[in-house]
Amino acid sequence: MVKVIVIGSGNVAQHLALAFLQSADIELVQMFARDPKNLDLFSGRVAITDKFSALAQADVYIIAVSDDAIGSVSSQLPFHDRLVVHTSGSVAMDDLTHARRGVFYPLQTFSKNKPVDLSTVPICLETNTGDFALLETVARSISNHIYKIDSRQRQSVHIAAVFVNNFVNHLYRIGNEICTQNDIPFDILKPLIIETASKVMTLSPKDAQTGPAKRNDMTTIEKHLRFLSDENQKIIYEHLTQSIQHGQKL
Amino acid sequence: MVKVIVIGSGNVAQHLALAFLQSADIELVQMFARDPKNLDLFSGRVAITDKFSALAQADVYIIAVSDDAIGSVSSQLPFHDRLVVHTSGSVAMDDLTHARRGVFYPLQTFSKNKPVDLSTVPICLETNTGDFALLETVARSISNHIYKIDSRQRQSVHIAAVFVNNFVNHLYRIGNEICTQNDIPFDILKPLIIETASKVMTLSPKDAQTGPAKRNDMTTIEKHLRFLSDENQKIIYEHLTQSIQHGQKL
Repeated sequence: MVKVIVIGSGNVAQHLALAFLQSADIELVQMFARDPKNLDLFSGRVAITDKFSALAQADVYIIAVSDDAIGSVSSQLPFHDRLVVHTSGSVAMDDLTHARRGVFYPLQTFSKNKPVDLSTVPICLETNTGDFALLETVARSISNHIYKIDSRQRQSVHIAAVFVNNFVNHLYRIGNEICTQNDIPFDILKPLIIETASKVMTLSPKDAQTGPAKRNDMTTIEKHLRFLSDENQKIIYEHLTQSIQHGQKL
Repeated sequence: MVKVIVIGSGNVAQHLALAFLQSADIELVQMFARDPKNLDLFSGRVAITDKFSALAQADVYIIAVSDDAIGSVSSQLPFHDRLVVHTSGSVAMDDLTHARRGVFYPLQTFSKNKPVDLSTVPICLETNTGDFALLETVARSISNHIYKIDSRQRQSVHIAAVFVNNFVNHLYRIGNEICTQNDIPFDILKPLIIETASKVMTLSPKDAQTGPAKRNDMTTIEKHLRFLSDENQKIIYEHLTQSIQHGQKL
């Protein structure tokens, strides 16, 4: 069994730790949290420490903390010869200074109280030395979708994820606002939201595109712009419409 | 049984007609298409005509044609005393000139070759006279989600739908582009796309928001903007980031 220690107590740390506890190939040796209260869920199931000096021996140390804490956490690890990886989409592998370093980036949005089936979550792996097979064993123990991705590619995946997750969610919020402003329940949009996402599972987004911008239907576009009174909504509407029209030419 | 005639041969017309054929409460008396070849799927199952003068007697005539053809089709109907409705999200009810008029707007994205379960599709209804109950019977025969919505509200629903469907799909396309530009399969984003949509079935989009803009993480935002070389992607990134940051203050 591969021995793993998870450092961190946020959503990613906890979701990974839960998955490792259920895996037959991984021994979750220990977890680290500055404030062990944040790991109450794990008490009695795995050893927990709040001291770097008390970190146990393991094959892989997974630093699952916020981007700006990765450097400080990694510099406090009391060894230099073991494999250390972080879980960030946006931080370069070489921001870790350990001789054996890597990245273990699960591409999913994790919420505190919503279980995620990790077996369907893509995990992007990168290592600097001969440790790829070891890291791959850890990843395959919890997911069926492993990608070997270098730091530059990972940066691009992270940006693409901002578009299809953070920005898409923001458009849901604008849809919700427009409904509220017109006394319509947001529920009315939900089947459309699900169908729009489902469509691109089998069609390319380019082929799935519909709507007034795609049809170059200026009558409807102008009607919509006259209707919108919120300046911010209007600006987003204009830019995305132009971008769709621009994309039509490509 | 309520007698219905569907006028049109596009995606909406065909999906509605298929649902009516399966309903025990509706008799689909006839369909109309300028070019009956487009209704080959229905030949032998329902009478088809290409002449307005040959339209049969029915309780409701549903005009399911493109927005700019609605006026011309409605003016050619050879009667003025029967209930005529259109299926557009964007055209006012009063663009129909018939004494008994209404709107029957199914809020979903329909594709040619992808079946849609209409029972989950919201249908927005509006009538000008005492015909609401009749139109509601027709709608309930195919869907469990009926909304009484006036023309102004329907315009707002249509705009909200542009945001959560057309614009969201365009963001999927940009995500796809970024992947392609960096030799990564679009498949890597699919679990995230589904989870992002699923989240707002139970959480409000405001509560579901995550990401660098929400956290006001300028380091990551600037890194992303330096990475993006496509001007159009950059502009969309900036505007949506600003819009999320603006929304944080509300």
